[in-house]
Amino acid sequence: MRKLYHFPLSVASRKVRLALAEKKIEFESVIEKPWEKRREFIALNLSGELPVLKEASGLIVAEGYAILEYLEEAYKELPLLPDEPAKRVEVRRLISWFDQKFAREVSDKLVYEKVFKKAYGRGWADTSIIREGHANIKYHLAYIGWLAERRQWLAGEELSLADLTAAAHLSALAYLGDVPWDKYGGAKDWYARIKSRPSFRSLLVDQVPGTPPAKWYHDLDF
Amino acid sequence: MRKLYHFPLSVASRKVRLALAEKKIEFESVIEKPWEKRREFIALNLSGELPVLKEASGLIVAEGYAILEYLEEAYKELPLLPDEPAKRVEVRRLISWFDQKFAREVSDKLVYEKVFKKAYGRGWADTSIIREGHANIKYHLAYIGWLAERRQWLAGEELSLADLTAAAHLSALAYLGDVPWDKYGGAKDWYARIKSRPSFRSLLVDQVPGTPPAKWYHDLDF
Repeated sequence: MRKLYHFPLSVASRKVRLALAEKKIEFESVIEKPWEKRREFIALNLSGELPVLKEASGLIVAEGYAILEYLEEAYKELPLLPDEPAKRVEVRRLISWFDQKFAREVSDKLVYEKVFKKAYGRGWADTSIIREGHANIKYHLAYIGWLAERRQWLAGEELSLADLTAAAHLSALAYLGDVPWDKYGGAKDWYARIKSRPSFRSLLVDQVPGTPPAKWYHDLDF
Repeated sequence: MRKLYHFPLSVASRKVRLALAEKKIEFESVIEKPWEKRREFIALNLSGELPVLKEASGLIVAEGYAILEYLEEAYKELPLLPDEPAKRVEVRRLISWFDQKFAREVSDKLVYEKVFKKAYGRGWADTSIIREGHANIKYHLAYIGWLAERRQWLAGEELSLADLTAAAHLSALAYLGDVPWDKYGGAKDWYARIKSRPSFRSLLVDQVPGTPPAKWYHDLDF
């Protein structure tokens, strides 16, 4: 059986879980705490980063980027990248927007500071960094709203990896109660649509010991 | 004519320049200083990140990751990704290794601290961060040597995007004189091979005003 090594609050893990579910590819879930640096896990991915997909054939696919591109190439049904070059380019531009810019300006300042920093034994959350994350998320929510008002989904008329990437970041932040949805109606409408998809169900029941989800995390009417 | 907006010491820009040269795709070079946030440049890529490729057709491809995947799909001759899934997975794992782990542990601590931090007006280089970068580069050079002793190129028997990604990082660091090659013979042999390729020539004549290259930067016998 295919296995996915992941952790509930790892953004890259969430993205791959959403992609597998959208593509209706079944997998066995293995919760991995990357800070424990388990020997068997490091043998799967020397960098120690999540997620890692192990196919039934034994093929090991490590790192979120490699897994997503692999899934698109190996499982062509239910594609999450459009066919046309200009549309693919737009999806991948937005993947970079969220995985680099949004990560640096928001997710690293909130999810890393609040969850992983302590787990890795690198000290306590820095409240000034958390404040920066809260300030930065606002213009990103405005941008999501701007996109979602002009297109059916973030990169165009079809749901794509761009939506799943954005949703992976925002759902981890929503778990922590760090998304001021009410002031950003456009972003909220988009998130409500993606949150109600069947692919989201397993994420909404995530529970991290010691870090319970925020009050509205599960609710489809949030 | 195709244009590439780039900056000599931007690692992502170097990677795309190497890929274009390996694939023998001609382009007009436009040096862009991203910290100036030129309006015409932000119109090409809202994130303000380099590089951006503008095709003769008008198609704009922004962000290093999107450009590289686009080039592989649009220009299939002289491929930089192998055909077999297991080999593609290994190339992309190593791209993540260098663009995420190596970037975080080494390039961001040296190239960003020494060059971009000041240019963006975010203060002076922090010597304790630079020391961390110098400490961290050692085990990465050992890993490159370990790979290069077991394979013709980093990801297997063919030159690939994994080599170009690693070389983009290391050449920016070599420009700054921050690579202790002499203690890492395996990594040095690999770099000497890639440095002598025609695709490297334009990088070796880079000159950044105010930041001249280190003494051995141009030399093929370094």
